[in-house]
Amino acid sequence: MEEFINVGKRIPKMDAEEKVTGKAIYIHDLKIPGMLHGKILYSPHPHAKIKSIDTSQAEKLPGVKAVLTGYNIPPIKFGVYKDNVPLKANKVCSLRDEVAAVAATDPEIAEEALDLIKVDYEILPGIFDPEEAMKEGALLIHEEHVGGKEKKPTNVLNLPWRLIAGDVEEARKNSAFVAEDRFKVTWVTHCCMGTSGCVAMFDLKNNLTVYSITQIPSLEQRDFTDALAAMGLKGKKARVIKTMIGGGFGSKLDTYAFEYIAILLAYKTRKPVKIIFSREEEFFATSPRQPAIIDIAQGCTKDGRLTFRDIRMILDNGAYTSWGATTPSVMMMPISSLYKVPNVRYIAKCVYTNNTYSQAMRGYGNPQATFAIDSQLDILAEMAGIDPLDFRMRNANTPGEVTPQNFKINTCGLRECIDAVAQKLDWRQVRGRKDGRGVGMASLIHVGGGARVYKSDGCGTIIKMDDFGTVNVFTGATDMGQGSETVIAQIVAEELGVRVEDVVVTHTDTDICPWDVGAHASRTTFVAGNSAKGAAKKVKDQLLEVAAKSLGESIENLDIRDRTIYSKKDPEKKSPLGKVLRAAHYTAGGSMVMAEYFYDPNNENLDREFKGNLSVTYAYGTHGVEVEVDKETGQVKILRYVAAHDVGRAINPMLLEGQVYGGATQGIGYALTERLILQNGKVMNPNFLDYKMLTAKDVPNFETIVVETNDQFGPFGAKGIGEPGLVPTAPAIANAIYDAVGVRIKDLPITPEKVLAALKDKEKK
Amino acid sequence: MEEFINVGKRIPKMDAEEKVTGKAIYIHDLKIPGMLHGKILYSPHPHAKIKSIDTSQAEKLPGVKAVLTGYNIPPIKFGVYKDNVPLKANKVCSLRDEVAAVAATDPEIAEEALDLIKVDYEILPGIFDPEEAMKEGALLIHEEHVGGKEKKPTNVLNLPWRLIAGDVEEARKNSAFVAEDRFKVTWVTHCCMGTSGCVAMFDLKNNLTVYSITQIPSLEQRDFTDALAAMGLKGKKARVIKTMIGGGFGSKLDTYAFEYIAILLAYKTRKPVKIIFSREEEFFATSPRQPAIIDIAQGCTKDGRLTFRDIRMILDNGAYTSWGATTPSVMMMPISSLYKVPNVRYIAKCVYTNNTYSQAMRGYGNPQATFAIDSQLDILAEMAGIDPLDFRMRNANTPGEVTPQNFKINTCGLRECIDAVAQKLDWRQVRGRKDGRGVGMASLIHVGGGARVYKSDGCGTIIKMDDFGTVNVFTGATDMGQGSETVIAQIVAEELGVRVEDVVVTHTDTDICPWDVGAHASRTTFVAGNSAKGAAKKVKDQLLEVAAKSLGESIENLDIRDRTIYSKKDPEKKSPLGKVLRAAHYTAGGSMVMAEYFYDPNNENLDREFKGNLSVTYAYGTHGVEVEVDKETGQVKILRYVAAHDVGRAINPMLLEGQVYGGATQGIGYALTERLILQNGKVMNPNFLDYKMLTAKDVPNFETIVVETNDQFGPFGAKGIGEPGLVPTAPAIANAIYDAVGVRIKDLPITPEKVLAALKDKEKK
Repeated sequence: MEEFINVGKRIPKMDAEEKVTGKAIYIHDLKIPGMLHGKILYSPHPHAKIKSIDTSQAEKLPGVKAVLTGYNIPPIKFGVYKDNVPLKANKVCSLRDEVAAVAATDPEIAEEALDLIKVDYEILPGIFDPEEAMKEGALLIHEEHVGGKEKKPTNVLNLPWRLIAGDVEEARKNSAFVAEDRFKVTWVTHCCMGTSGCVAMFDLKNNLTVYSITQIPSLEQRDFTDALAAMGLKGKKARVIKTMIGGGFGSKLDTYAFEYIAILLAYKTRKPVKIIFSREEEFFATSPRQPAIIDIAQGCTKDGRLTFRDIRMILDNGAYTSWGATTPSVMMMPISSLYKVPNVRYIAKCVYTNNTYSQAMRGYGNPQATFAIDSQLDILAEMAGIDPLDFRMRNANTPGEVTPQNFKINTCGLRECIDAVAQKLDWRQVRGRKDGRGVGMASLIHVGGGARVYKSDGCGTIIKMDDFGTVNVFTGATDMGQGSETVIAQIVAEELGVRVEDVVVTHTDTDICPWDVGAHASRTTFVAGNSAKGAAKKVKDQLLEVAAKSLGESIENLDIRDRTIYSKKDPEKKSPLGKVLRAAHYTAGGSMVMAEYFYDPNNENLDREFKGNLSVTYAYGTHGVEVEVDKETGQVKILRYVAAHDVGRAINPMLLEGQVYGGATQGIGYALTERLILQNGKVMNPNFLDYKMLTAKDVPNFETIVVETNDQFGPFGAKGIGEPGLVPTAPAIANAIYDAVGVRIKDLPITPEKVLAALKDKEKK
Repeated sequence: MEEFINVGKRIPKMDAEEKVTGKAIYIHDLKIPGMLHGKILYSPHPHAKIKSIDTSQAEKLPGVKAVLTGYNIPPIKFGVYKDNVPLKANKVCSLRDEVAAVAATDPEIAEEALDLIKVDYEILPGIFDPEEAMKEGALLIHEEHVGGKEKKPTNVLNLPWRLIAGDVEEARKNSAFVAEDRFKVTWVTHCCMGTSGCVAMFDLKNNLTVYSITQIPSLEQRDFTDALAAMGLKGKKARVIKTMIGGGFGSKLDTYAFEYIAILLAYKTRKPVKIIFSREEEFFATSPRQPAIIDIAQGCTKDGRLTFRDIRMILDNGAYTSWGATTPSVMMMPISSLYKVPNVRYIAKCVYTNNTYSQAMRGYGNPQATFAIDSQLDILAEMAGIDPLDFRMRNANTPGEVTPQNFKINTCGLRECIDAVAQKLDWRQVRGRKDGRGVGMASLIHVGGGARVYKSDGCGTIIKMDDFGTVNVFTGATDMGQGSETVIAQIVAEELGVRVEDVVVTHTDTDICPWDVGAHASRTTFVAGNSAKGAAKKVKDQLLEVAAKSLGESIENLDIRDRTIYSKKDPEKKSPLGKVLRAAHYTAGGSMVMAEYFYDPNNENLDREFKGNLSVTYAYGTHGVEVEVDKETGQVKILRYVAAHDVGRAINPMLLEGQVYGGATQGIGYALTERLILQNGKVMNPNFLDYKMLTAKDVPNFETIVVETNDQFGPFGAKGIGEPGLVPTAPAIANAIYDAVGVRIKDLPITPEKVLAALKDKEKK
């Protein structure tokens, strides 16, 4: 094993002091001279026609600078399938539909102006159940939307989610055991501590700057450039500057109506316009994780080898499309490639309803699918009379495997993870007591080496060094709190032989930072890390070339360590890095050390059959829990929580553990407590009193196991770890509950009420 | 001649709208949350010992957060010879000596606190005349300063200004005519519309950021890094961010006490600290152009060929050294190389006095020396009985010449300039009337291709392009109002075949922008321009390589014009640039177009004899004026003003004319009205009522002639033009006055009083 100086060290986040002392500038803190405040009027009806809007009273209110409606804005379209507009005209399709917006000198005036806008609606019946919405003759959400071969109007989206590998029907016939179940998962939301917001402003040449908290600066820049064109400003430039981001978790992977509204208000008023969501807006007007109805069947041989997996899924898309509509693309990953399963069929339908529309959220479909798969694995194991631990070991993925979706499994520490979790939990001793305490486990696969969702999965890096040895790194990567700035600094410092404190990372401005596809798919450490490493390598080559001349040593014999260039052959030959830099610079025809690098991983877009090697490498892991179930109350208490992850290499074990803790905490919430309650399209619990997010006192003591498989393609061997911590939590807990009290809960969250009801049912039987 | 699309066009400054509408952020506009305001207490005596300082009352004033004196600050030294400290202890040597400083919650409180600081002084006699200060036994300004071979205490600085070429004594003997004169030039100041100021702040890791209006961001960063080390913060980083700069003219080529004071106050208080000079401070506490006493002799042959030039100079250095102390290095340029003169001797002495100390100012010694040289040329021409026009043509420099200082004259349009001015002024017709109206001319040489003052004369550029064809340029260059941002955008646009509005130039932040030696020596268009062109060339090569593949055409046959890559052979083969960029990007293993380039011109540091090819190329020019002198009042009125400049190539004729207008306006002020009046070290006219800067109504209609010699080393042939406009103005006017009324004024400014006195003297004779 190589000895690393910077990689593998528990270095605190570089912005930690700024954040804990309140010095960090979040979007809420940003003030720009002359700035106006924007507020949005939402529809009070989930489904209605707009008969008229009267904004005249609002416009007269002193301090109001602009009032916009769907009737006086240019034709900007957004959303994954461009079915959304910033302000709705003619019709509203959900309770978060934006109907009008105001810019005023202060937020209270803007709020007051909203009350003065009179909208006359003709109320339409709403559809809130996707199965209802799918029915022939159902009321149409978008009358113009057609589907199927006949191009008939329908609420079912034209999304061909269909993955077929092998012959499921044949495999089912030949299976010794087959389990069939329906699982249900509902809306949960990101609960970012920083609510959504932005500030939009135009310069005097009509170029746009948006201060944003996006996870996708380059794509947002593209979307805003398109919006400028729609506004009649073709050729004008959009610049995105990120402030500190108070949590992302996928919620910021798209552009939203509020951003376009801020842009339109800024253009109308010629002033910077800020829109900040209230906590209530954050709950009802942002896009949660997509709910799903999952019909799943899996079979196995007598000795417990999986024979097939057959899944049909109905997803409630809500009223408009965002990335939530595409989560089946990621669901295919565990469906096809979690455990070895030779025959796979997956068919999913996304259906328009009058509910809120969904968005990417940490794991992006994977937690939903894995809940069904790994819950049912225990059911199937029981049918086969095999300990679920053995069942999983028997079917565990292995390096070198090519899965039914054509994923090429490069490194894979799944067996080590399963084994480590079992050891830690004393699985053989504690399982099967049925005394109210039980253990369960579940595993995960996730992309760990980028994910070719777009045509490019790349990230650019520019590095310049100054005379003092400071390394300025401009990266496309987005640090939304996960610590990518620090990880990139560690990678650059390691490659260059300097210290982390020598590295300054700039990651906030599309005018400065090279392109990057965004902070999604747990790709930043792998992709931005490889990009930074590549740029650092070019810088290092330049440094060694200069030093070779001054030290009279061949380049191959030179290396850099702790800010010193030295000869590996002759320890006398060495020179401080700063001296080499100055020698290179302060000479006739001198040069400064700079380099740029664009890394686009060697992964594949999925083909028309949804097959292809989506990621350069894959992350695996297993979580195990021990729970205690109170039979009187149905309350589930987590006694122990063990999380084992194949991370390739831990660049920063502390930040990595942070990702696992955070992920698993969200996972426990998903499993046990969190639920965005919608009734007739209305969010009934838009606050932290009624939405049961875990707080510090609810979080168990996580035991983390890091399995390092040293992936040959990762920067210093690393794979992604951003999302995995969340993925197997719910099935592991569900399995532990079953082990503890013998009831199987198949819809999330597993509330005490559901446990108690199941216990009562079981008693009855 | 090549046909250019962007080069040669009259494009307004890119920041013009921002500036004229007040949107631009100058240092005065900058507010940072929690910011304190710093104020400085200056010495009331030009020379005194500090016996004690009592700051206790000031410290008690509510709102005061820190009081610093020379007794409680770390040992930071600055100034060209490190003879200055931010706050003086023990002794003050001039009336601008900083004795104490206060940071308070508002500027008025800080001001009030200054009044509460009690300083007890022991007054010493002052020396205000450099000739007095040079005398044996004169009171010493800096007791520790020693000079000469014996290392004896002295006020004469250890600066070996001595240029010898040929044999002046021998040449003098062989001359047909010899003129000997004493010229005097006094203090003038930059009169920047934006007064000096900065904001200093530390982050929680003790890294320093200074918002600055410097012309030398990279060197300032180095100075501040050294200061951090002196403060016990070795290894901490300094970052310099420039706001809009309200005028530079050389005044911002050094770091100043007020900046270190802001840094020290910020460190003490842990708050951002802003110091902004009042207009009065700007007049007395910044560093003006250096005054000089110039003894000059020149000789010529019978037919008017210059035989020698012999100059001795005494420069009043003031109490501390800044770049003013080094102006003789630039004076050597016209002394050795303006007109062909085979034998040259120049010896200068800089002398400490209790006056204010001087700084670089546009032209950097050149206007002082050229005033003497070109005034005396008319005297010599008259002695030889030759028309000054013919005299100049006879001695004019020519391409291919190597001057006595070893300058290699590459391109030279001096003859064209002289001729063009004579034509415009109808020289042959209007000269010699002696009727109160007269014409005069004078010429200039200046560095036009950088100036190797430091070991590096380089500038770095980084370029990245996005999917839309936007070109982001990060340059080391400093735009202080001269328009370098626009010129660089034009150069990049021309090289890349895009439009100027496609180019975004970032030039404000040492964390982003590559190293540059600074905005001095009229080097930015040439050096930063060549650097930008080099980076653009690399970008272009990448673009053509990608396009060659997609268009099926060889790279050599491709070019870019107006955002389109096309085949020079087959006009059907073409592709919009954006499409090529996206094709390069959105592909497996894709890339984004980025490049970096560091350009260090192939010029030479002067050797120990002050010889060497300082600049890659040299700028020449001639100004001609027609004046009317009121014999009753001595008032000089400029009737016509013609300025001809060899600029190599005008990248932007409008900005170029702006440089010439601005330079010549400052030159007219230098010639006729401007003077910083010092009495016993005190500035007597620290305001625009008493300091006679030209205003709009005083400015004549300039007739500009652009001579394009298309220098092979310049970007698209361009040479520098920042300073030249100022250089020959004063001698041209002095010569015109002589032509008009027959009096020769040899000390500046040529006030009506001096003219009138000379006329009376002449009448008496």
